[in-house]
Amino acid sequence: MNLLLLEDQDFISSDVVRITGRRHQQLRTVIKAAPGKLCRAGLLGGMRGHAEVLEIDETSAVLRFAAEDAPPPPLPVVLLIALPRPQTYTKVLNCAVEMGVKRIDFINSFKVEKSFWQGSRLREEYISNELRLALEQCADTILPEIHFHPRFKPFIEDELPEILPGASRIAGIPGAEAVPEDFAGSPVLLAVGPEGGFTDYENDFLLEHGFTGVGLGPHILRTEFAVGALLARLSVRK
Amino acid sequence: MNLLLLEDQDFISSDVVRITGRRHQQLRTVIKAAPGKLCRAGLLGGMRGHAEVLEIDETSAVLRFAAEDAPPPPLPVVLLIALPRPQTYTKVLNCAVEMGVKRIDFINSFKVEKSFWQGSRLREEYISNELRLALEQCADTILPEIHFHPRFKPFIEDELPEILPGASRIAGIPGAEAVPEDFAGSPVLLAVGPEGGFTDYENDFLLEHGFTGVGLGPHILRTEFAVGALLARLSVRK
Repeated sequence: MNLLLLEDQDFISSDVVRITGRRHQQLRTVIKAAPGKLCRAGLLGGMRGHAEVLEIDETSAVLRFAAEDAPPPPLPVVLLIALPRPQTYTKVLNCAVEMGVKRIDFINSFKVEKSFWQGSRLREEYISNELRLALEQCADTILPEIHFHPRFKPFIEDELPEILPGASRIAGIPGAEAVPEDFAGSPVLLAVGPEGGFTDYENDFLLEHGFTGVGLGPHILRTEFAVGALLARLSVRK
Repeated sequence: MNLLLLEDQDFISSDVVRITGRRHQQLRTVIKAAPGKLCRAGLLGGMRGHAEVLEIDETSAVLRFAAEDAPPPPLPVVLLIALPRPQTYTKVLNCAVEMGVKRIDFINSFKVEKSFWQGSRLREEYISNELRLALEQCADTILPEIHFHPRFKPFIEDELPEILPGASRIAGIPGAEAVPEDFAGSPVLLAVGPEGGFTDYENDFLLEHGFTGVGLGPHILRTEFAVGALLARLSVRK
């Protein structure tokens, strides 16, 4: 936890919070909080700063929060990714959020197993918890939006035009000539296929809808590393 | 498995192999190999190409290998990384190998727990298996070298000068002005700290020994994502 994430319901006065549950446990055992100790904190959806521990016991901690600076700027990338198997899904969620992505759309693809759409990790409670953990890791306060689109073509044809209009559209396609860093520094819709890649039909459909293929080089990366590498190369300083 | 990795002891004639064990299981269940089927294959330490299934039964598969092209070029980066906790260690190993790193040196740091040095994952058998799985994923054939250095200062002072002489020395340091892509395209010694970062003493020691700090931006990434992002930004096309 690099940032204690505070929510509206934690506040017991204008600047004092009472923390219980998981965050309290982490304050006790990992941060070893004691009265007077300062820790980095941030208000969900708002400013970051420091919180001073006023009291801590076996059930809760009371801290005073002082806001100092804005959260880090988002990465201007919307990630469109074929819904991966559950463990990979969680890694993708964590990686993208930690790298500053503020919108992830999980999409369908021929190679996505139908059962993945029924997974318990797609439930709001699971996502809500994972997103908070990722924000605490990367010291951000802005919750990303997560969307699910179990139909590929209607999503690309009908819904995509509403998302980040004017953004460059790129798709990770092994062997493509262009590279992600060509598109760094401006808004990007980034499509990533399933393990084994989009089908030829899907690739063609994306290209017909304004996507440019980008490659990462000769090594074939598993999904979560491909996402990380694409986002990192879209983060290069221009 | 994007590449069936063949080893010298698999050959029963100059171009025919008999595969058993895990690879045979994957050929049967994942690749659904049958006589006549071609799959990508590569010779450990050598050329890549295709293997044609000649026979497959419940205990082994016999294939004929034809070499076609060289393995992908390595990333000219040696990764020096504070030994992470076991699960993170495996992710770092996989990520770095898939991204083309051919030498990883796990080093000590004040924040590395002593018990990590006794972990079963540091044993040759574990590493040997993980490296092969990573090569099969990324379709490479060249085994990386893995080294362990349980003493920080003697390693930096005495052993480092022998590794990739003339390479740029960079260290991931949050908030540093320089960025990894500044060093892309030429040999690099890349140092990465433990969760929570190198100590000030260690950072100063690295800077005194020719390292330049590089930053990844305002988000704090967990170790495996930081490694992936640093390597990806060192892979940008120059």
